[in-house]
Amino acid sequence: MPVTRDNDVMDGLMQPRPLTIAHILERAERLYAHKHVTTAGGKRLTYAEVAEHVRRLATALDSLGVPRGARVGTFAANTRRHLELYLALPVTKRVLHSINIRLSAEHLEYIVNHAEDDVVCVDRGLLPRIWPSAERMPGVRYWVVLPDGTGTPVPDDPRILDYDELISGSEPFTGSFEDAFTLADENLAAGLCYTSGTTGSPKGVLYSHRSTVLHCLGTLAAGFIGLCESDVVMPIVPMFHANAWGLPYGAMMTGAALVLPGLSAEPAHLLGLMEAERVTVAGAVPTVWTSLAPHLRAHDLSATRFLLGGGSAVPTALSETYRAAIGVPITHSWGMTEVSPVGVIGGTRTQHRDATEEERVAVRSAQGQPLPLVNIRIVDVETGAELPRDGKAVGELQVAGPWVAGGYFRVDTPESFTEDGWLRTGDLATIDADGYLRLVDRMKDLIKSGGEWISSVELEAAISSHPDVVEVAVIARPDPRWMERPVAYVVLRDGSTATAGELRAHIEPMVAKWWLPDDFVFMAKLPKTGTGKLSKASLRDAQRIA
Amino acid sequence: MPVTRDNDVMDGLMQPRPLTIAHILERAERLYAHKHVTTAGGKRLTYAEVAEHVRRLATALDSLGVPRGARVGTFAANTRRHLELYLALPVTKRVLHSINIRLSAEHLEYIVNHAEDDVVCVDRGLLPRIWPSAERMPGVRYWVVLPDGTGTPVPDDPRILDYDELISGSEPFTGSFEDAFTLADENLAAGLCYTSGTTGSPKGVLYSHRSTVLHCLGTLAAGFIGLCESDVVMPIVPMFHANAWGLPYGAMMTGAALVLPGLSAEPAHLLGLMEAERVTVAGAVPTVWTSLAPHLRAHDLSATRFLLGGGSAVPTALSETYRAAIGVPITHSWGMTEVSPVGVIGGTRTQHRDATEEERVAVRSAQGQPLPLVNIRIVDVETGAELPRDGKAVGELQVAGPWVAGGYFRVDTPESFTEDGWLRTGDLATIDADGYLRLVDRMKDLIKSGGEWISSVELEAAISSHPDVVEVAVIARPDPRWMERPVAYVVLRDGSTATAGELRAHIEPMVAKWWLPDDFVFMAKLPKTGTGKLSKASLRDAQRIA
Repeated sequence: MPVTRDNDVMDGLMQPRPLTIAHILERAERLYAHKHVTTAGGKRLTYAEVAEHVRRLATALDSLGVPRGARVGTFAANTRRHLELYLALPVTKRVLHSINIRLSAEHLEYIVNHAEDDVVCVDRGLLPRIWPSAERMPGVRYWVVLPDGTGTPVPDDPRILDYDELISGSEPFTGSFEDAFTLADENLAAGLCYTSGTTGSPKGVLYSHRSTVLHCLGTLAAGFIGLCESDVVMPIVPMFHANAWGLPYGAMMTGAALVLPGLSAEPAHLLGLMEAERVTVAGAVPTVWTSLAPHLRAHDLSATRFLLGGGSAVPTALSETYRAAIGVPITHSWGMTEVSPVGVIGGTRTQHRDATEEERVAVRSAQGQPLPLVNIRIVDVETGAELPRDGKAVGELQVAGPWVAGGYFRVDTPESFTEDGWLRTGDLATIDADGYLRLVDRMKDLIKSGGEWISSVELEAAISSHPDVVEVAVIARPDPRWMERPVAYVVLRDGSTATAGELRAHIEPMVAKWWLPDDFVFMAKLPKTGTGKLSKASLRDAQRIA
Repeated sequence: MPVTRDNDVMDGLMQPRPLTIAHILERAERLYAHKHVTTAGGKRLTYAEVAEHVRRLATALDSLGVPRGARVGTFAANTRRHLELYLALPVTKRVLHSINIRLSAEHLEYIVNHAEDDVVCVDRGLLPRIWPSAERMPGVRYWVVLPDGTGTPVPDDPRILDYDELISGSEPFTGSFEDAFTLADENLAAGLCYTSGTTGSPKGVLYSHRSTVLHCLGTLAAGFIGLCESDVVMPIVPMFHANAWGLPYGAMMTGAALVLPGLSAEPAHLLGLMEAERVTVAGAVPTVWTSLAPHLRAHDLSATRFLLGGGSAVPTALSETYRAAIGVPITHSWGMTEVSPVGVIGGTRTQHRDATEEERVAVRSAQGQPLPLVNIRIVDVETGAELPRDGKAVGELQVAGPWVAGGYFRVDTPESFTEDGWLRTGDLATIDADGYLRLVDRMKDLIKSGGEWISSVELEAAISSHPDVVEVAVIARPDPRWMERPVAYVVLRDGSTATAGELRAHIEPMVAKWWLPDDFVFMAKLPKTGTGKLSKASLRDAQRIA
């Protein structure tokens, strides 16, 4: 019998309350006013004080005539003033455009002009990196300088304003930001981040209030990151890098204390801050974790319960170094700027309780399971057909969910999305029967040798398991006979005398013979992208030039 | 300067993915297929098997011609078949109408007819409670009997179908339920629960997919209930009572094992199940926790990490009994059918770390802080003006949020909502500077004596702190001089010889002299509502008749 009477279908009768960042702010005011935001080298402020600044900033933005919907750039380290902008812009229906401070001038100018930033807010110490480009960003009406303790000279220019003077010179808005949003407003643009774009122009991901709040709830889900009120959260990952993985918003929504480490990436600075503030949760890219690893035992990190690693794969040996030293491994997180950015969280589950430690290490080396609301699948690169979740089939990773990009800002890129609206990630991966994602490689980093694929990620994992290897990147070298052959670029620990032959012997039992790199090139350090990830593009460029 | 260019305002560019219960089901299939649902006295099934039944049920509902949007009643205990209906109905865009099995025939008939239930699914053992009303529910086309191990006779009637035969006789739907939903569909009605309604007709709360999924994320938030994959969740609270507080959906979304205790409320049954299944999280109304309390030490409950109490205030003495016996207090949850139902969760926070145990007990006696996305406020009962959050001002509790009702099903009740769309709860409460809610009384339970208010809740708390008191209810008795005077109805533990004078002496140091009840009436048990709460309405009726 066919289903008939479709006219009976009806909506539920629940309150039409929007999901907005205004709720995050006002929730912190109401419940967590006494909790602290600590900036390295700065004053320790309460959420009440931060919120008071946000309320003053709201009227300041009005008096500067910054339109609703306008993009306002931030060019700043992880500080509480940056946090105030994180809140004041979206809760007043402007768009937070956080700009990577390590971009080339060319990309910087492209991004600010493409976003049509109305105002740009800059850490005083970072002015020299952006002010020389100011004349090529004619749309920026004001440059707001954020005091950061540096004495960097400030040019004498009528467009330049002082953040603290703006705050102190403005009355606080005393109403409810939350009440100014309707249900339709939850889709309003709230944030804008450009992907670093190793090829082509950077592309902007335009987050909505809805996507930001749902992602925020994702960071609170127990058993994943599970941010909660008793946490002390330190985003080492920059706030200009995909919203610092959502950690600032998540911490404020649940009332966790925040520790913002500023600009310095010095191990003694970061670990000292973690020790002094009793940090429970910290997030950083693997290269940062690598730089901290040798210094772990000099600090009391007994408060730490969770370390998050993302941006690129966390070498198993590195994670195990942390587990041995402080009892906490680095938990994998897979994400992208396009995924707000957290999509998948690693770690073991109940089915691994009786596993051997070796098996558990292997589970932890996978990227993990998707957060609630996130769907992942792998598809055949040629046909686009979905591949089985058997832990063996390798295909392109695609992702769907309410905090996943459905397009880019003011640029048409149909090649980035499937017909059914999923994001094509460019990552090659397997998914197993428990839904565990395991990245095999970036599609463009895979090495094709004699018609067969070699995973640069697996080779790197093997090489980095050698105790003397600090960092490694494997890329393809053009080869007349095999098309491509792998070459390893290696940084050894100070004083190591390891040779290419020793490294080769070390990995021989781990990989197929034809995977063995043709060359091991030793370097003092490896090139990094603006977000601190290894830059294989730079290595390829250098190789081409050489 | 005024804000201009509002035409610049734009939406974010995120995927238009709806929040649906279909995601909960298919997530469990993809990630947690091997996890278990255990029904007392029944087989232990995996989520894969449950999902397979749901997929068969979906085609069975189609073949019965149940329209999209139609309401399907369930009249059942907490079992895995009930769970399958929890899923199959909303994921196929029908509406799950869970019916309280303890309703009077009059209310039962009213509700089924008001909801226009197309089909009603009934536990075989519960048939005698509803079948006699069948002729007065002419809109019900089919009665589906759920086998429950009882041999209850099934009438010979062509409208009666067997659940297991329906399942085994239907092919499973093999597509994606989730893909059949669009963004607009997230507002579709998914569930319908009628409030027990001590006055007037029962009123229906019509949940949407969106409200259900957001509430579900709320149950996962760490530091509140924090359901996670390693949990074993046992909803003792009935699945016909406000969706068993969202525990079944929450458990499935995060992959926790589920233990469904069936109909029996026997302490040995419930505690035996908790012990055998290593239950970590359980939820029940205080009267159930009271009945289990004397038997705690006979069971190994070492796996338990969280006990949830709601529906009415949990006496502090009861919670402390649990903490002493098994190390886990009963955590307060404030909610209502209209709030999906969980709005507020109790417990201590970091600011109470250095508090004395006595102070911590006092904090735990409060209802707690709202979940993310939930807003609460108290207003002056006369003027409607918002009252300060100072822990002293007493006003009517009002609540707003995306999982809070904005109306009732097919009945206009403007008195239940404020002009700005908040739900009026009828509870009197204080809110303190940390946002902690503390219920003072139901507005209608407050006793007005000589022009001053007496809180029945506070009096009950004082009386129940006497070691011999098992249950107590305080209501007003009309009084010619004082308008109203408090009277306490008390159940003493077996063998107690406590007298009214002893109880009076016990509470004298705790309350104002003029609060002392005029009478202590000793009873063998107190009357309960259909959901197991103390029924003050019944006591008032009895008093009136007497």
